[in-house]
Amino acid sequence: MANIDLSHHLSAEARLRKPTAMKEIWRLASRKPNMVSLANGDPPNTLYPIKKVLFEIASPWGDDPVAAWKTEGSNTATQVISATRDGPSVLPVKKAMQYTNGAGHVETQKAVSELAHAYHHPPNHVITLTLGNGDAVTKCFRLFGNPGDHFLADEFTFSALVQAAIPQGIKWVPVRMDDGGMLPEQLEKIMVNWDATRGPRPHVLYTIPCGQNPTGSTLSVERRRKIYELAQRFDLIIIEDDPYYFLQFPSNSAADTTFTPSFLSMDVDERVVRVDSFSKVIAPGTRLGWITSSAQFHEQLVALTDASSQHPHAFGQMFLSELLGPEGWQLPGFDKWVRGLGMEYKRRCDFFLDLFAKEVATTGLAEAIAPEAGMFVWTRIHISKHPRYRKSIASSEEVKVPRTNCKQLMEELFDTCLDEGLVVMPASIFKVDSDAQYGDPEDNIEDRLNYFRLTYCGTEEIMTTGLSTLGRALKRFFAD
Amino acid sequence: MANIDLSHHLSAEARLRKPTAMKEIWRLASRKPNMVSLANGDPPNTLYPIKKVLFEIASPWGDDPVAAWKTEGSNTATQVISATRDGPSVLPVKKAMQYTNGAGHVETQKAVSELAHAYHHPPNHVITLTLGNGDAVTKCFRLFGNPGDHFLADEFTFSALVQAAIPQGIKWVPVRMDDGGMLPEQLEKIMVNWDATRGPRPHVLYTIPCGQNPTGSTLSVERRRKIYELAQRFDLIIIEDDPYYFLQFPSNSAADTTFTPSFLSMDVDERVVRVDSFSKVIAPGTRLGWITSSAQFHEQLVALTDASSQHPHAFGQMFLSELLGPEGWQLPGFDKWVRGLGMEYKRRCDFFLDLFAKEVATTGLAEAIAPEAGMFVWTRIHISKHPRYRKSIASSEEVKVPRTNCKQLMEELFDTCLDEGLVVMPASIFKVDSDAQYGDPEDNIEDRLNYFRLTYCGTEEIMTTGLSTLGRALKRFFAD
Repeated sequence: MANIDLSHHLSAEARLRKPTAMKEIWRLASRKPNMVSLANGDPPNTLYPIKKVLFEIASPWGDDPVAAWKTEGSNTATQVISATRDGPSVLPVKKAMQYTNGAGHVETQKAVSELAHAYHHPPNHVITLTLGNGDAVTKCFRLFGNPGDHFLADEFTFSALVQAAIPQGIKWVPVRMDDGGMLPEQLEKIMVNWDATRGPRPHVLYTIPCGQNPTGSTLSVERRRKIYELAQRFDLIIIEDDPYYFLQFPSNSAADTTFTPSFLSMDVDERVVRVDSFSKVIAPGTRLGWITSSAQFHEQLVALTDASSQHPHAFGQMFLSELLGPEGWQLPGFDKWVRGLGMEYKRRCDFFLDLFAKEVATTGLAEAIAPEAGMFVWTRIHISKHPRYRKSIASSEEVKVPRTNCKQLMEELFDTCLDEGLVVMPASIFKVDSDAQYGDPEDNIEDRLNYFRLTYCGTEEIMTTGLSTLGRALKRFFAD
Repeated sequence: MANIDLSHHLSAEARLRKPTAMKEIWRLASRKPNMVSLANGDPPNTLYPIKKVLFEIASPWGDDPVAAWKTEGSNTATQVISATRDGPSVLPVKKAMQYTNGAGHVETQKAVSELAHAYHHPPNHVITLTLGNGDAVTKCFRLFGNPGDHFLADEFTFSALVQAAIPQGIKWVPVRMDDGGMLPEQLEKIMVNWDATRGPRPHVLYTIPCGQNPTGSTLSVERRRKIYELAQRFDLIIIEDDPYYFLQFPSNSAADTTFTPSFLSMDVDERVVRVDSFSKVIAPGTRLGWITSSAQFHEQLVALTDASSQHPHAFGQMFLSELLGPEGWQLPGFDKWVRGLGMEYKRRCDFFLDLFAKEVATTGLAEAIAPEAGMFVWTRIHISKHPRYRKSIASSEEVKVPRTNCKQLMEELFDTCLDEGLVVMPASIFKVDSDAQYGDPEDNIEDRLNYFRLTYCGTEEIMTTGLSTLGRALKRFFAD
């Protein structure tokens, strides 16, 4: 257990949650060996109509396995992993498909735990299987959020999850970012200057540290250390949502990636709840990821899972157990594959940035902020160059409203792109709204919406057409 | 849409939930054909390292396919269903494993929708995929439950789910049952005599209509009609949780089951939210079921799913799409299989009841209530025959406390069973606690805890040993 008791962070709902009464019966039942049970209402596994589940997967062992897989597709070497009814499999069908508790099968937990430890060496944490990061992060919101609580987030972030917390009564406090992500000094400013009339001071920080969605920024180790120190000083829980961790770029064309140390890896207090995903490594439909947290928060997460989504699906647990097992990739193969993915995303990103330099930057109207991980290029539009750009539109009485027409012009530019046949993601989609009366009058986020989130996930053809369209749309709009 | 507007049943949380802002972008993007997108941050499907997912499954086509499968196991005829990367499959891997919205893939929705319509012919309802009934029912609680709300339930029910709602602030009101399940006149009595000082009158009824857990009872069509009329009269939403629907017994040894009409099948108002599961038909680990509801509640369920567990897992969607597709069982094969399951559970139940008659009923100390569906035999202990049984232990001032020592004696009997090496599920685990001050003094549930939930899911050996142990434990305890 942690040296520090962090149980005061738990929500009222989490505190009220009790283990199911049936568990007590199982505990009593295990006090003697060879008990006969007429108690458990599980379908007999002899009636499961499944004899075998087999997956044919890519081989991670070539020189550049992801490039080979992508290019040659079905002609590349594959390997077969499978779970059979009675085994020998890491997780035989008849075991995998039973009821378990919210933590899932120990075999899958063990495999995923070894993977987490290999990358993060967390001091004293345990694994909880999840149904992917949406499930995981919203469960954390239920675990820590009371109505009226304030949570901190990157000022631009994955809005679907931030919005998910609002009906629960959580209020968001955006933290100012620059091209390197969240600014520790801005976080400190918010905490030091917190006005108690707003309600309780924020006690949870939600952040995406690598290849952030939407800005593509990756927090440096120095910033992470500063933010962690602030979390210690102000008693914050950090929800580290890191789906792009394994998509960090190598520094050159070889698979030489140095993975940036996670918040989890520096978490001596057990105040980090780290959320990991296979969605970008395997595929989004996997819907199986994991949380790494203190044992106490793990127990709470399992109780919440028992009381909602129940245990993770067996198909995914069989897949992961075999993928990371002796017939599958194991850890070295997994590492080969994710480093290959890093190379692939870097190649895509380089292709995108080269095109951007030719097709867009040459207009002088926009600039791409090069990422070090993930899928996104945060693209700054030089909106102040627009002939209709206006500053200080607000009267001095209305200091908390925007001071420019940035928002309106960006909406027009978005429409111009659509007219030209191009869809982009406007920054406005990702902004975290703070309580209007507490906004910084000198720094209204609506004056800084001059960004598009662009992606290099598409084909080269899409990138080529897309970026030349963007150049054309910019020129047309700014000529207005 | 329904003739009746039922939106006033939605919780405050559900009303605050908004579709994600990204959806609006996709809507705008679809206004022109051939749009190029640099917007969507999905991993390219060429990078998913899965070429094929294959399932070897039982064949449902023999005379008694479940008996054959159970007995001959791996030697029985099997069939193979699979999803390949590019198809032809109902749901090819590269499509299945993308991000989708909370409703899941249309292919799987369509397959499950056809199945639901074949059995229930719901007048005007739509399907939402779920992660099984725990997920589904707790989502319904979030959808309809405000803190302080009262929900109705069978007085003995699946306690894990009822308990899951309590931290959310929902209060339970138990409805008295007899051997045929919930008593409509008791439901009416609660609603008619509702004391407004308790808070808002109950507006949701949660019930398990077939092979109820734990009582094994199946509501007759007459009771269902009466309960549905009461729901109309008192404006109740019915959450029909029906995991044992497909385990209804044939009337003789052939597969001649007549499935009892569901609440859904009589739901002209769209006030029924029906929850179905594959856990008892395929296996618990499937973690994919469905809700059938009005279109309005469907939209709310999808919004909640987008804001929590996200879309259902791809492996399960591929499995179900192929199972119900042209290479798989299709509906006739599914029907053959579930009727076979009904026969198998009936055989098990008959075996159990025969043994019970010999080993337990002969003691004169207990009686088995024969079920018509499901997995459970509710076993009444004749506790008043115990030498230490006491009536009217409560003084006349304390009318709301139990009037007998039933609870204490049943705890002792449970311990005696454990001592003899037998685990049973005591009724106390399943009782729904009402606000103490509103309990019926003439009818305290603690005076009626003289039941065990027993199951015939185990092997014949387990049933044989278990029931002879129960007979021995009863004789020992009552000789006390």
